[in-house]
Amino acid sequence: MSAPTGPAFSVFALLGLPEFRPGDNLAGILGDALAGVAEDGDIVAVTSKIVSKAEGRLVAAADREDAITAETVRVVATRPHADGSGVTRIVENRQGLVMAAAGVDASNTPDGHVLLLPEDPDASARHLAEALRDRLGIRLGVILTDTIGRAWREGQTDAAIGAAGVIVLEELRGTLDANGRPLAVTAPAVGDELASAAELVKGKAGGRPVAVIRGLGHLVTGMDAPGARALIRPAERDMFRLGAEEAWREGYAAGLHAARQGSPPREA
Amino acid sequence: MSAPTGPAFSVFALLGLPEFRPGDNLAGILGDALAGVAEDGDIVAVTSKIVSKAEGRLVAAADREDAITAETVRVVATRPHADGSGVTRIVENRQGLVMAAAGVDASNTPDGHVLLLPEDPDASARHLAEALRDRLGIRLGVILTDTIGRAWREGQTDAAIGAAGVIVLEELRGTLDANGRPLAVTAPAVGDELASAAELVKGKAGGRPVAVIRGLGHLVTGMDAPGARALIRPAERDMFRLGAEEAWREGYAAGLHAARQGSPPREA
Repeated sequence: MSAPTGPAFSVFALLGLPEFRPGDNLAGILGDALAGVAEDGDIVAVTSKIVSKAEGRLVAAADREDAITAETVRVVATRPHADGSGVTRIVENRQGLVMAAAGVDASNTPDGHVLLLPEDPDASARHLAEALRDRLGIRLGVILTDTIGRAWREGQTDAAIGAAGVIVLEELRGTLDANGRPLAVTAPAVGDELASAAELVKGKAGGRPVAVIRGLGHLVTGMDAPGARALIRPAERDMFRLGAEEAWREGYAAGLHAARQGSPPREA
Repeated sequence: MSAPTGPAFSVFALLGLPEFRPGDNLAGILGDALAGVAEDGDIVAVTSKIVSKAEGRLVAAADREDAITAETVRVVATRPHADGSGVTRIVENRQGLVMAAAGVDASNTPDGHVLLLPEDPDASARHLAEALRDRLGIRLGVILTDTIGRAWREGQTDAAIGAAGVIVLEELRGTLDANGRPLAVTAPAVGDELASAAELVKGKAGGRPVAVIRGLGHLVTGMDAPGARALIRPAERDMFRLGAEEAWREGYAAGLHAARQGSPPREA
């Protein structure tokens, strides 16, 4: 009594891509690689690192910490490393993403250099998706992926930091369940789920920076869909816009200040 | 000049599973469904909801808020709904998971009832994995999935809240990149990435609570591997153990208290 099987998709990595360098025509190289491979409705997941490299975002930086500072818009939380070797900084970066080290990458880079994220990952994804659609004559989506840490959970997962031609947030608000009650889950972040699925074949050691996700064509859409920016929660609506220690210290200072000003001493 | 393609996996949903009721032999029913379908090295992703139902975790609860309180070990953050209809509570629940509403589900449940998470999701996964391995005579892994919100990012993704016979956290600490530098990413949370991949075919509307992930047999392991508990970051190592407002209020109270005690008024 085997169960019938239903909706299915597959994920596979592209092999043999070159090491990317500044000025490389990424869309041309990926178009070559995907010709005869990509099908209508595919979603192409591209590690943002190779987009950065092609866009010349490998920059000389004597000090990685200075590079992180330069990419930081807002410090969210900091904590000294357990081994005393430095400080982990969780920050909001220029792209609006909350990430450790602002997304500045010093692994897989030559000495004295760091790799910055694409300046506008949604624009990079759009450029790539448009070029690939034109070249291959098929409807496909593109996500740019990067690896991010999470609150409350160990380890890292890949997320979509750029997207074009693909739905990143499914809007189920208002959808009812079988009993006519509103669904508790209102917006699956499918962009991040696609990025996570792709990571499972791309791996971290390099050499497989692109994966193709096939069978989820219902998520492929027009080029006017919102990019991965839609997956970023603005700080003012974020209950975790600051680390607990950072918020505590701000509160402590405000409490002292209030007491000094002669405000009636009361619990907040 | 198509690129050769490399590592690949596929994900498909099982169809035709029944509505689960207390006392149902979930392992038996899934064993039937997977017989002739599952292959050695498969990972079976099971929505925790059906495990809860079979384990009798559908409980009468006049008030969902009371049920959430009963499942709460520690309040992490709260915020009134924008429409004034209530309060969102992010809490650590009995399972150690930080989740909205403690993971108490009132959608897809009969009136006056809520569905609690499995009491020990890793134990449930282990029971299921052992029964399926015995029955089918193949090596497979099991993850129990649930949908969780995230800090900093919109929408929800599925995560592994229970696991058996499958690696949930790949340990790359100490691994070097092509230039001999330590990899920045030290532990891909593959358990959560598997759960996210499965969600892309399971969907939210019900009726497809089980997916099979095929082609990632290198993640399938002995039954002694750590369960999904390994994906939970303990509060004492969590920079986001409290919401920013909650931490600020605690700090404010401490600042007032310090000032009242005549501590030298200084910035913290």
